[in-house]
Parts: sequence; C-alpha cells; structure tokens
Amino acid sequence: MSTTNEPDHVPPVNDYVDEATNVDDIVNPWEVKAGSNTGVDYDKLIRRFGSSKVSDDLVKRIERIIQKPVHHFIRRGIFFSHRDVDQILLAYEQKKPFYLYTGRGPSSDAMHLGHLVPFIMTKWLQDVFDVPLVIQMTDDEKFLWKDLSADETNRLAYENAKDIIACGFDKDKTFIFSDFDFIAQCPKFYRNICKIQKCVTYNQVKGIFGFGDSDCIGKIAFPAIQAAPAISSTFPFIFGEKQKQELACFIPCAIDQDPYFRMTRDVAPRLNFPKPALLHSVFFPALQGSQSKMSSSDPNSSIFLTDTPKDIKNKINKHAFSGGKASIEEHREKGGDCEVDVSYQYLRFFLDDDEKLQQIREGYSSGQILTGELKKTLIEILQKLVADHQVKRQQVTDDIVREYMRPRELKFRY
Amino acid sequence: MSTTNEPDHVPPVNDYVDEATNVDDIVNPWEVKAGSNTGVDYDKLIRRFGSSKVSDDLVKRIERIIQKPVHHFIRRGIFFSHRDVDQILLAYEQKKPFYLYTGRGPSSDAMHLGHLVPFIMTKWLQDVFDVPLVIQMTDDEKFLWKDLSADETNRLAYENAKDIIACGFDKDKTFIFSDFDFIAQCPKFYRNICKIQKCVTYNQVKGIFGFGDSDCIGKIAFPAIQAAPAISSTFPFIFGEKQKQELACFIPCAIDQDPYFRMTRDVAPRLNFPKPALLHSVFFPALQGSQSKMSSSDPNSSIFLTDTPKDIKNKINKHAFSGGKASIEEHREKGGDCEVDVSYQYLRFFLDDDEKLQQIREGYSSGQILTGELKKTLIEILQKLVADHQVKRQQVTDDIVREYMRPRELKFRY
Repeated sequence: MSTTNEPDHVPPVNDYVDEATNVDDIVNPWEVKAGSNTGVDYDKLIRRFGSSKVSDDLVKRIERIIQKPVHHFIRRGIFFSHRDVDQILLAYEQKKPFYLYTGRGPSSDAMHLGHLVPFIMTKWLQDVFDVPLVIQMTDDEKFLWKDLSADETNRLAYENAKDIIACGFDKDKTFIFSDFDFIAQCPKFYRNICKIQKCVTYNQVKGIFGFGDSDCIGKIAFPAIQAAPAISSTFPFIFGEKQKQELACFIPCAIDQDPYFRMTRDVAPRLNFPKPALLHSVFFPALQGSQSKMSSSDPNSSIFLTDTPKDIKNKINKHAFSGGKASIEEHREKGGDCEVDVSYQYLRFFLDDDEKLQQIREGYSSGQILTGELKKTLIEILQKLVADHQVKRQQVTDDIVREYMRPRELKFRY
Repeated sequence: MSTTNEPDHVPPVNDYVDEATNVDDIVNPWEVKAGSNTGVDYDKLIRRFGSSKVSDDLVKRIERIIQKPVHHFIRRGIFFSHRDVDQILLAYEQKKPFYLYTGRGPSSDAMHLGHLVPFIMTKWLQDVFDVPLVIQMTDDEKFLWKDLSADETNRLAYENAKDIIACGFDKDKTFIFSDFDFIAQCPKFYRNICKIQKCVTYNQVKGIFGFGDSDCIGKIAFPAIQAAPAISSTFPFIFGEKQKQELACFIPCAIDQDPYFRMTRDVAPRLNFPKPALLHSVFFPALQGSQSKMSSSDPNSSIFLTDTPKDIKNKINKHAFSGGKASIEEHREKGGDCEVDVSYQYLRFFLDDDEKLQQIREGYSSGQILTGELKKTLIEILQKLVADHQVKRQQVTDDIVREYMRPRELKFRY
C-alpha cells in the first residue's frame, strides 16, 4: 500500500557519506550527530531514508479533511517528513479504522522539553482523528543499552508515564505500557515479537542499525520489540481477538526512530498487516545549538520538565546559543541570525501564535529586538509551559498511572 | 564453584575436526551426525566440550549417598558425561537446596522412545533427591526453527506435556511450562531473559552455536530463553520472591543441549547465581544404526509412543539394524556383534535387569542367541513399555495438564 516510491533496498543507516562535502550526519536511535554546525541536513535525510517531505499540498489536504488549521509543528516543518500519511488520510476519509502508536525509552527521571515534542504532536493527532493510541515505554531497551538495572528502567517507565499522561491524553482512548510488564500481561505481544524476529536476519539489523558482532544478543533482537506494537494484533483487548488486517497504524516520532519502522514496514506485509505510516520530527536542539539532540545526562544542555522558573531563566540566559551580534550597536545595525539562535528556534516549537513569531523573527533579524529581549519572551513562555506541566503532572496519581497502563478495552468509534 | 577444570574458553562447537582421522562428529542442538559408522565418539566429545566423564568413583559416591543402586542409565554409561554433579551431591549431603530442570522442543505430535530417555532419568533423580523440577517446552524455539505456526508449536507443547506427565512426575513437585505462555504469566522470566541477553554477544553465540549472519534475530537471541530457567529467580512462585543465590540447578539432558548450558554456566555467576550442573546422555540410536539421532519426521527410524504392538513388531523385525551374521550357521559359529546391533542397544536402554542383559549379551556374542530371538525379547519389552505409556497418557486429562502447567507453589523440603 506504499505510495512513497521507496526503493526496495533502503541504504543502511551508518554507511552514508555525503558525496559533496564528505561530512556525514549520524542519525540512528542511539546517536544523532550533525556533520556541520548548521545541524542535521533534513532534506538529505529524507532522500537517504527514502521517506517523503511533508509538502504544502499534504498540509493543505490535511486541513481540508480535518476542516481546521494543522498544528504549528506541521505548519512550521517541525514534523517535516512522513511515510504514507496520505494513506492514513484516505482511511480517515473512508471512515476506515487506524490507531496511533508512539513511545519513549525511559532512561532518566528527567525528561526535557524535546521529549514532549512527539507527545504534543500525538495528542493533537488523537484529538483531531479521535482514534486509540498505544504508547510503548521501552524499559527493556534502556536496560539493554544503559548501565541501569531492570528494576530501575521499569521504575522510570512509570515515572515518565506521569509526564506523558500530563500531556492530556484521553484516558478512554490511550493505553501506555512498559515492555517488561506488558509481555507478562498479554501473550500476543511475545508471539508477535517472535513472528517479527523470524522475519529479520542479523544481516538486516546490522545494515539498518549498525549493530556489530560484539553487541549483545538482546540489542540484536530488540528491534522486533519496538516493531510489534505497529501490528494491531499485539493488542487483542483493544482491537478484538480477530486479527484486523485492515487496521492501519500511524506513528509520530523523531526521525531517529525511523530505522525501527523501516524494518517494520518491510516485515508487516509478510505477516499480513499493513505497513505503518509515519510522521517524523526534526530534533529539538540543545541549548548549545543544533549540532546535537539534547541529552538527559547534561543538565545544562536542556530545559527539564522539573526545572524551576529560576533554572529556566538562568539556563536560557547563560546557555542558549545566541544568533545575536557581539555588541548592541552591531546587532542594531546587522540584526540577529534566527537560523542559529536557539531561543528563536525554541519559540518555533513553543510559541503557537504565527503572527507574533513572525514579528519576533522580523524584529530580531532586523536588529530591532535584542538577544536579551528575545530570551525574555522565551523564558516567560517556557516558565509557564513547564509550571503548567508540573501542575498537571502533580495531579497524576499512581492510581491514574495504573489505569492508563492497565490492558483494557478502549472507547473508540470505528 | 566449578571443579571440572574447564578451560576458560571452550572451543566452539562447529569447528571441530578430529586431528587423527579428519572425520568430525557434528553435535549441536539442531544436528547430530556421526563422522564414522560406529556412531559419535563420546570420549572425544567430553574432551571437546570440556565436561567430565561419569566415572566409576562418581557412581560409587552417588550410591553411597543415596544408599541404593543408581539407575541403569547411569550404570551403563547412557548418562556418560557431567558437569559439577559432585557439587550437587555435596549440596544434597549438606541438605542445601537444589532443583532439577529439563525440557523438550515440541516440534511434533509423535514423540519417540529416545525422547523419553531424559525424562526417565529426571523422574528417577526427582524421586531419589526429592526436589522440585521445572520442565521447559520451547514452543518459541520450534516456531523459530521450523516451518510451523506459533499456534501449532504451542498446541504441541500441551500435547507433548501429556507424554511427559505420563512418565510419572510428582505433581506436587513439578512445573511444566510453554515459553509462549509462561512469558505472559511471570514477569521474572522475561527479565531474566533480558539479563542473560545483556551478557552474551553475537560473537559468543556464533562461536557456541554456529549461527550465521543470515540467521534470523529470533534464533540469535533464543539461547537466553533456554538459559533463563537455570536461574532460580525465574520461578518466584516456587522459590520465593527473594533471589536464592545458593539454589543450585541440575540439568539432565542429551549432550547436544550442552552448548546452551556452557553458555549459561558462563553467564550465571555474572548474575550472582551458581553455574548449573549437568548430566549428559548419549543419543538414542535410530533403528537403522548409531550414526544419527532418531527423527520424528521419518516414521521408520524410530519406535513412536503412539505405535501399536504390531507397528513395534514390524519395525523391529524389518528395520532394526542387526549385528548378527548372514546365515544361522555363521552366526552360531562366530556370534553377533552387540556394539552395532540396534536391538541389543535398545535393550541396554529398556531392560533394567543387569543379569538378564548380561546373559543376552553373552548368548548373542557367542552365537547361542539368534537375531530373531534377540528381537523377540526386545519386541516384548517395548510392546509392554509403549502400551503402558499409552494407558498412562490416556489418563492425563486436559485438567491434569493445566494443573502441572499452572504457575504455583510446589511442595518441597529445604
């Protein structure tokens, strides 16, 4: 059912070297590193991964179908790439069922702003399309990759679930699960994992993920575990005991997760399920600039969801890379560079008012607005966003978490 | 805790070539093929695998400790090799706890006589030592390796469990489980699988099992699933929620399963569990001779547990390779060769009367007993054994199977 003209053999992730500049972006689920200081070249990534650009035509089509403007993440190219979203729209128009799937690797208590991006997008998609959503917490993955115990990554899955729930997902339509626990709750999960593992060779995961012979066998087998939720029969309590071959899966995620789902798109039809559709985001820049993703392990690289208003103010003022000029005089004369200015980039993510953003862009570029003023605007927005998140998270009790994470029927209209 | 002087690096299974004859026995969990027509060279296998011979001294020590004769499988060298059985005896003497673990890969409805061998041994060990026993049905393995559906191998797990239960295991001390189902019943199983998978690299399973880059990732990860039951914390409902670092595991199995447990013995101490002890059997010969294991897929290679008395009579008479001479006269003069005579070899497995076996050996070797007479003795014994098994299996209802396969406390004295 693909309409994206994918080549039969998508080139492996890690052997890409840009022909012209000989500088390669590294983009895989465990490492994102831009080859140049302007950050990852996303147009090249689309060609390299064989995905499709979220075109103006696609945006218009979405808006025509949902009869309202798209989320600013889509308008502004933050979700810039996709696979088969047109098929999802077709299904929606034809009132055929589909479901949303996204996830998180719980490696830290401290989630940062960047971690919210796919969940904000997913929440909007759930509201617009009114469909069920499954959210995978890959505590097994983080156990395998990090120097953390299984008990610890499992605990983090439940802690992080609180932040996810605080994004406002509809409890009647959302199922969140930890791999460690869900595998012991639903026999179909492990069966589908095995079915996928039977379809994928070591050679393939080596090519797709860059695994090596010294990697542990847990890592080598893991991709099947992230693939399984894209097969609707993994959730019989949601979608019924009968396999739903027509039930499409739609995955919003950061582009670094695409290798998992390229693999899944190869396997799903062999198991008589549709290829999952994808909507890919760019990476949320670190405070220091666009060359890398934010890191949970470097407190000054990110705004954390646990930061105080003062933390936020200090971090933005001290660490947010500025595109402004060295002196006020020079800035007034030549203007700032929005493309590299992290504060401006953050506003693109979190200031939803297009008009105001445009004013800031023009003001900053022309030198009217100084870096300090730009940062002040951002600080106010993020202080409110993070404080609001903290209030909402505070309201998420352990009982509420258990309810979201209990395998159960969901309410949805098909 | 090993006392067997194992080398640090056990040589890989598949690169063995006998220096003197340049003929290699292939022995791994999926293929057993003797290099010469006298069958597998078991003494060489002990050296190659780095295990220990079941010596006369060990047999005497067992008999002294249990205060009765050992099973004829041990007396006759059918269980010929071991790892750390002396440690198990020490634990028994010191009244320290241990448990038994064995298993079966359910790839066929038709179990044959050879499949009974480890279960007969295990039943005897359970009776003698009065310890809990866990039996793994690797329906996931058979799904991954064979052209069978997951539903089918899971069904076979329950069918084969009936044959296993018919061997007479104490229900109060025996837990049988299907991997597909148990993983969805007990969270500790998958956690221990992941812990083991984190300790083992692709290079290691490549060396131990001979996996290649074209093997599916399910096969590559599977060894951890067979290893996990050798870690007592996989069964908290049996051994308690607290990890029992002192709880040893004792595994009777055919020698082709040793690669799994060599790997397990490497990993277990890193997870703070003792290395499992092992007791290895030779292979049960095919009717056609000792060069290979019996095969469920060739009906004339084996006596099946579903065979009628007539089937048994016909198969032995027609297909059991004879060590007798071409004519009665020549046989009377020169005598038969017990070493290659399959009927005699089967009697070593299933005629427990040492004196009678010795009479038959002498009579056949001297030419007094003819092949037809030898076969008649065997036919009578096997007809009774198989008919008795069928009666016992008939009594194993689905409810009884469910009871053995329900995760539950077992009764045992520690």
